[in-house]
Amino acid sequence: MKYSFKNDYAEGAHPRILEALLRTNLQQQNGYGLDEFSLAAEQLILNLSKSPNSRVHFVSGGTQANIIVISALLRPHESVIAADSGHIFTNETGAIEATGHKVHGVPTADGKLRTDDILKVLEQHTNKPHQVKQKIVYISNATEVGTFYTKRELQDLSDFCRRYNLYLFMDGARLGNALTATGNDLTLEDVASLTDVYYLGGTKNGALLGEAIVINNTEVQDEFGFHIKQKGGMLAKGRLLGIQFHELLRDNLYFDLALHANTQAMRIKEAFQEAGCTFLSDTYTNQIFPVLTNNQIDKLSANFDFYVWKKVSEEKSAIRIITSWATVEDSVDVFIREIEEMG
Amino acid sequence: MKYSFKNDYAEGAHPRILEALLRTNLQQQNGYGLDEFSLAAEQLILNLSKSPNSRVHFVSGGTQANIIVISALLRPHESVIAADSGHIFTNETGAIEATGHKVHGVPTADGKLRTDDILKVLEQHTNKPHQVKQKIVYISNATEVGTFYTKRELQDLSDFCRRYNLYLFMDGARLGNALTATGNDLTLEDVASLTDVYYLGGTKNGALLGEAIVINNTEVQDEFGFHIKQKGGMLAKGRLLGIQFHELLRDNLYFDLALHANTQAMRIKEAFQEAGCTFLSDTYTNQIFPVLTNNQIDKLSANFDFYVWKKVSEEKSAIRIITSWATVEDSVDVFIREIEEMG
Amino acid sequence: MKYSFKNDYAEGAHPRILEALLRTNLQQQNGYGLDEFSLAAEQLILNLSKSPNSRVHFVSGGTQANIIVISALLRPHESVIAADSGHIFTNETGAIEATGHKVHGVPTADGKLRTDDILKVLEQHTNKPHQVKQKIVYISNATEVGTFYTKRELQDLSDFCRRYNLYLFMDGARLGNALTATGNDLTLEDVASLTDVYYLGGTKNGALLGEAIVINNTEVQDEFGFHIKQKGGMLAKGRLLGIQFHELLRDNLYFDLALHANTQAMRIKEAFQEAGCTFLSDTYTNQIFPVLTNNQIDKLSANFDFYVWKKVSEEKSAIRIITSWATVEDSVDVFIREIEEMG
Amino acid sequence: MKYSFKNDYAEGAHPRILEALLRTNLQQQNGYGLDEFSLAAEQLILNLSKSPNSRVHFVSGGTQANIIVISALLRPHESVIAADSGHIFTNETGAIEATGHKVHGVPTADGKLRTDDILKVLEQHTNKPHQVKQKIVYISNATEVGTFYTKRELQDLSDFCRRYNLYLFMDGARLGNALTATGNDLTLEDVASLTDVYYLGGTKNGALLGEAIVINNTEVQDEFGFHIKQKGGMLAKGRLLGIQFHELLRDNLYFDLALHANTQAMRIKEAFQEAGCTFLSDTYTNQIFPVLTNNQIDKLSANFDFYVWKKVSEEKSAIRIITSWATVEDSVDVFIREIEEMG
Repeated sequence: MKYSFKNDYAEGAHPRILEALLRTNLQQQNGYGLDEFSLAAEQLILNLSKSPNSRVHFVSGGTQANIIVISALLRPHESVIAADSGHIFTNETGAIEATGHKVHGVPTADGKLRTDDILKVLEQHTNKPHQVKQKIVYISNATEVGTFYTKRELQDLSDFCRRYNLYLFMDGARLGNALTATGNDLTLEDVASLTDVYYLGGTKNGALLGEAIVINNTEVQDEFGFHIKQKGGMLAKGRLLGIQFHELLRDNLYFDLALHANTQAMRIKEAFQEAGCTFLSDTYTNQIFPVLTNNQIDKLSANFDFYVWKKVSEEKSAIRIITSWATVEDSVDVFIREIEEMG
Repeated sequence: MKYSFKNDYAEGAHPRILEALLRTNLQQQNGYGLDEFSLAAEQLILNLSKSPNSRVHFVSGGTQANIIVISALLRPHESVIAADSGHIFTNETGAIEATGHKVHGVPTADGKLRTDDILKVLEQHTNKPHQVKQKIVYISNATEVGTFYTKRELQDLSDFCRRYNLYLFMDGARLGNALTATGNDLTLEDVASLTDVYYLGGTKNGALLGEAIVINNTEVQDEFGFHIKQKGGMLAKGRLLGIQFHELLRDNLYFDLALHANTQAMRIKEAFQEAGCTFLSDTYTNQIFPVLTNNQIDKLSANFDFYVWKKVSEEKSAIRIITSWATVEDSVDVFIREIEEMG
Repeated sequence: MKYSFKNDYAEGAHPRILEALLRTNLQQQNGYGLDEFSLAAEQLILNLSKSPNSRVHFVSGGTQANIIVISALLRPHESVIAADSGHIFTNETGAIEATGHKVHGVPTADGKLRTDDILKVLEQHTNKPHQVKQKIVYISNATEVGTFYTKRELQDLSDFCRRYNLYLFMDGARLGNALTATGNDLTLEDVASLTDVYYLGGTKNGALLGEAIVINNTEVQDEFGFHIKQKGGMLAKGRLLGIQFHELLRDNLYFDLALHANTQAMRIKEAFQEAGCTFLSDTYTNQIFPVLTNNQIDKLSANFDFYVWKKVSEEKSAIRIITSWATVEDSVDVFIREIEEMG
Repeated sequence: MKYSFKNDYAEGAHPRILEALLRTNLQQQNGYGLDEFSLAAEQLILNLSKSPNSRVHFVSGGTQANIIVISALLRPHESVIAADSGHIFTNETGAIEATGHKVHGVPTADGKLRTDDILKVLEQHTNKPHQVKQKIVYISNATEVGTFYTKRELQDLSDFCRRYNLYLFMDGARLGNALTATGNDLTLEDVASLTDVYYLGGTKNGALLGEAIVINNTEVQDEFGFHIKQKGGMLAKGRLLGIQFHELLRDNLYFDLALHANTQAMRIKEAFQEAGCTFLSDTYTNQIFPVLTNNQIDKLSANFDFYVWKKVSEEKSAIRIITSWATVEDSVDVFIREIEEMG
């Protein structure tokens, strides 16, 4: 059996999470997110982010979070701007459009939106009422290609959005990885103060499933539960989400797990660098995209699973390596040795 | 702390399910429902229902299952017929309409649709193309009011639907309770052969979450995954659903748990009967609706939680008692004693 | 060729409208409703209704008006309450649901909603957030069955809606007929002050096509044009609508035409009354529903076209007679004679 | 008053159309497109396009036609590919997305899609079921920038679409202009045999309003009326559309009007060419985009209205000149003289 670096959801949950589920299993709790664990987990997030007026809702997955947040915030004629590598633009089977809204996909060099990108979209849509009205800016942090936003960059986006009356929404499926990356200077508190809505990903950071949607903008908090229920995102046993986030956040576990994933990725990155490889993009989170020869790819494929991401020439392709909270250090050691010997 | 009979999702999962999650936790698996547990669980369902050409998809919850199935099957101008007590008509925040489709809510005496009810809707919609075209008949088994369909009744609906070119879709959030009810003569095999689509509920029968959608009609199986993904129903760690259904179905656990719930409900029902109570409806599954005096309700409320369901006069109301796989026999014993003494 | 009483859109436009189109035909005008005729027609409506802060938009037809208004006003989890005879509930192929919203259809005796009907719907939907939230009350005046609202009735609905934070929306496809009916005490000014939105029907009252949507509630006027464009309701040559409404409203033509239709219907009604017929409902607008024997129906069908509306017994059915601005008085004379002789 | 070259819908209808409306005005006709004029106009189109098995439906405008056709043809997870200058991508306020479907906007040099453009989109969407499935190719002929498709080009698109199981849909809001352009070698018969659906525009070619949707693919003809009604596109007085198309198509009027528009545009184009101007694109239909100095634009603006379309440098911009069936030859003469003298 090959060891897999294909994604960050190949294993189950961190053992402490399963223990918490066991420990609480037979306690009778309210359904639909009103259990005491969900309420306590909400409080932990408000405390961590120093944002007491925010509201938290737990849902099963990232696409669901995106659907619910975006459709709840927009009126029918409004649209959302995203990088064209953004998950909502390219990897959710048209989920946002299925709720009636256009997504503008903007080409970027590194998966990160900048104010100029957004401004260009606004300038191309001034023919009212014949064109959609842009209302949400969607960013992912970490991005789908492994990069992250600095505090300066997020501040710029936030200032721009407030000036142009746009909501800033951060997809944080890998927010843990972003906040623990080498070079990151952004805190959860910053995220809470600079975005209107974001979510804190659990699925890719130790949970069985679950994303914590945090609504900072108090003007869009009302009646949010209706949207969760309507879109099929409200679990009868909401405790399942509450218990997991409570366990992840009651101490530093959430960030420890993300850091572990990043560290393993950076160890592998260094090995590729020392082997003289270049990379598709310069990443510091849990995804790396080294460019290898076909021969090197064949060799590494013997014992390890990963995606061949993009052909760069007849002889070379970039591969994608993803690590996670569960990545086994010993397996990384073996992989590094094979990198050193791949020729 | 009062013991609760308010719903059948107040506890976590059956211990065997948590054990199975623990046992398999660190095995690397494919995501998005392609893990080996989901594939094995699908095979168990096909075997149990003797329906080898059916296809199975696991999703998180009932509303999600309803959204995905109905929107996948209908063209824009088509509608679905349900009892007006049906979950999709009254308890899903307009989830089906949010996908663009009308739900016709038909009044029924006992939560069960009959062919005459359906025919009446068809006859009221003959002004083409000015009225929607009915295309799905949605039934719940057990129903939202605790009743169940006999084989004869399901056969009639199925024959009718085939004659009128309608799909028959069964919401089986409590299918286990229906199939193990006293007086039931329907088998899973019958359900598979008489419906186009149904689902087997896990959330209310021992799982943390999860419903198994079973598509029997081979003409509507293609490309179903797109709809799951688009509606936010595809879990990255699909293993979570696969492992649970595999554990529930690899022996008789699923049906044992449902039977336990029914048995406890019937014990309580008998106690109310002996105390001279009448009932809102005559049920044999895990829900009962005894009519009590306000005074009796007050007394029972001291130690037990339940919903006061419907006022029937100034002095009397019906309450709703729901049992589950987790209902503790000893607590039922205490409750029965209190019923005997409620005066 | 039989003379038809089947509907009120069997002929083209009132001659003055065609003349106005001819007269202005080659004037170059702005597109999309910004032509001078549309602007002038808007002003006429504001003056007539003494509602200077209202805003007017012209669209092609009633279903389109309903789609645009309702989808513009509602957030995704909100619904609309209508009589179950309401056009949006039963005769628009699920147009409202296709924009994502549930329509609650309430049985009524005479096609008119009353506050008790609405209250009952509200009381059945208190389980937040599991049920849709009611936000619009939709009424038709005249109704689909020929009845109309008195000032008292509209005042009650308006008061109720304001108390419960609901929008009151009047479908006025036949508003002219309502306002000129015998017994009516409602004025256009009342309609403007008591509703949030209404429309003034042109299609069934002398125009080739066109409804004038009037938005009285200033809080929902913004960005309305986006919704018209998005739903396909914005005509490039908006002048076509502006010219017609300008012609209808620059003197009393609009009301004269409606009164003509009502008068002819009442003449026919009287003839049926004198012949001893009963009626399905007691109407004073341009629709009547006399109950005839099968034999009588056969006789009248020889020279006249009308719908057999509803079977009331083996021997009798109600028919529907509709008159319009174009109904020829001589043809009514002939029809009346045949009624007198139908036996 | 300046003479306007801003668009091709500034005037009313061709006089023969108004005459036809007058002539037929008081004939009683069936509603909803079942009048004898609509039926006769359908037959004329089938004859002209030698496509007896096609079906024709008349609707009010282009956006409405696009909404109805696309939403009727697609299942929820399917998408449409268009040029990024395509009307549905950029100028319909997200109308297609509002029906739930993604539009892929492809950059093109000249507003025309080619098979390579389409193939590239397909190749970027192979990650099933995580990405939408492409199902319709939408092209405009003439395009939004004045170019047209040759027979070879349409044949290539058609072959490609059939090979890849895609529907080919032609927006023919300006189809008359395309088919009468200098250099065009495509016939209406070709269009009917090479596309699955197209429409023949009336609004921009002599009618007050109206587009004739022609469905050639017999597999998607059924139940089309439901979609028209649901999307608010079914006129009660469908005769209004039928009469106009009947008049335009009973002899060569439709093509004569389009040719007139093209001829006037080409006269103006020649004048700009002789004045040494370049053009944004090389067009032969009723739109031209000459590049002028700011000074020249100012001079021409004194007596004529047109849009300044695109800034090309600090000193120069392209303007857009549109002619129509109604463009007055004398006004064009004056404009040409001013071009000659603009310096």
